[in-house]
Amino acid sequence: MKIIRSITEMQRTAGKFKRNGRTIGFVPTMGALHEGHLSLIRRANKENEITVTSIFVNPIQFGPAEDFRFYPRPFKQDAALCRKEGVDFIFYPGPEQMYPPGFKTYVDVFEMGDFLCGPLRPGHFRAVTTVVSKLFNIVFPTAAYFGQKDAQQAVIIQRMVKDLNIPVKIKVIPTVREKNGLALSSRNIYLSASERKDSVVLSEALKSAKKMILSGRRNADTIIKAMRKLISAKKNAKIEYISVVGLEDLKPLKKIQEKCLVALAVRFGRTRLIDNIIVKS
Amino acid sequence: MKIIRSITEMQRTAGKFKRNGRTIGFVPTMGALHEGHLSLIRRANKENEITVTSIFVNPIQFGPAEDFRFYPRPFKQDAALCRKEGVDFIFYPGPEQMYPPGFKTYVDVFEMGDFLCGPLRPGHFRAVTTVVSKLFNIVFPTAAYFGQKDAQQAVIIQRMVKDLNIPVKIKVIPTVREKNGLALSSRNIYLSASERKDSVVLSEALKSAKKMILSGRRNADTIIKAMRKLISAKKNAKIEYISVVGLEDLKPLKKIQEKCLVALAVRFGRTRLIDNIIVKS
Repeated sequence: MKIIRSITEMQRTAGKFKRNGRTIGFVPTMGALHEGHLSLIRRANKENEITVTSIFVNPIQFGPAEDFRFYPRPFKQDAALCRKEGVDFIFYPGPEQMYPPGFKTYVDVFEMGDFLCGPLRPGHFRAVTTVVSKLFNIVFPTAAYFGQKDAQQAVIIQRMVKDLNIPVKIKVIPTVREKNGLALSSRNIYLSASERKDSVVLSEALKSAKKMILSGRRNADTIIKAMRKLISAKKNAKIEYISVVGLEDLKPLKKIQEKCLVALAVRFGRTRLIDNIIVKS
Repeated sequence: MKIIRSITEMQRTAGKFKRNGRTIGFVPTMGALHEGHLSLIRRANKENEITVTSIFVNPIQFGPAEDFRFYPRPFKQDAALCRKEGVDFIFYPGPEQMYPPGFKTYVDVFEMGDFLCGPLRPGHFRAVTTVVSKLFNIVFPTAAYFGQKDAQQAVIIQRMVKDLNIPVKIKVIPTVREKNGLALSSRNIYLSASERKDSVVLSEALKSAKKMILSGRRNADTIIKAMRKLISAKKNAKIEYISVVGLEDLKPLKKIQEKCLVALAVRFGRTRLIDNIIVKS
């Protein structure tokens, strides 16, 4: 495994593999790797000849009140995990290299950032699509792997790739959960013992929503109300949103047809957790 | 020479050349080819193994009051010119293929569209950078060729390519002019005989600006005033702007240091003409 810090070296290396007709599987991450990331890496590794992981805590996707400075950066541990999983290259650039002075180009998927996390994190998805565009131009992936946990991100990136004709396959991999149901996230380490215990309610609320829909409930408000009641029972929980939206356009649904995404963001203390479930009835 | 209408076929074709290590020179155009375009094609042909020209009248870069419907589309003549110049592939997609329903991704270079043509053509440069991004993802060029006549476009595209790490070299080729100095443009065919005659004043004003700067004048307003006087002497001419700006950031200069871009947009009847000159003192 090789760690590459330079953009041009990564382009040269990936370009050579590409020219030789080798397939490149790419897993972009912000580090602090957990089993969720590792499941993406394993899929990338299985489906491609070369596996590249990027580790880059993207400064522009954090709001001014968000946790950029405190976001965990256990690089040595991450590198060891990557090596163990058979990653061939870690791309590990510095922010000054990714955003040099004078930087002013952004890739924006309109409307799809208006729902779910968008209004609460202005500029976040534009920052994600911008950095992912850059990374695709540096790593030349055949396929790139994203987690279903970040559902909105995955949908927006799929739209971007389609709209801009980017020659990469996007694969969205199921959320990995703890035994109790809590979706894995690099931010779970912020949770206190009691918050961690209470946060189980998120996956329980999603499961109960699925059950309601599968048993014939079609009114989104009814589902949301029931979830809100369940989650609010935990004193620590502060709901940011609970939404039932279309799978492709992320627009809020009133009446659920065949398929939908039930998604939520809830704060426990200073920790913001998101989770979601796809329901096909 | 082959004409390709399908995005996926173009990607497959270009991808094969790319994998075989062949260099691809790319000239994106809106058709209605003139000697200016041909000078780009010749350079692309000379410097690369494969030459691709795209012909696509990009609907989203025209304002509602602009000439999208009437923009000239002499495809047969264009194809004959391309064949004569040794173009290998014309990429000639339809608008419904480039912008299918649900399209919502845009590439935007901020600030640099705030000057010169930007305020008068809202959304124009965003549309240009978006379509050029798409074309780069379809044609996989080693180098892409743009005319200095569209100076702002060239600077914005260079910024985009740098910011997004797009692996393509951008080459900006000098403006081709008629003997009397008029910069070649597909829109010159709109000019009446008298407008065509009067429009020579644009290149004359630019030349006189260059002379003033080289003779030591450093105050941009003085230069602009003198140009304005020259151009206003033509009754048909309606000045949209005359600006002296920095070469890299396009910001208006008060005092001219070593290098600057003198640029203008002037209407003759319904025809909008642009021209510019780079001055290095």
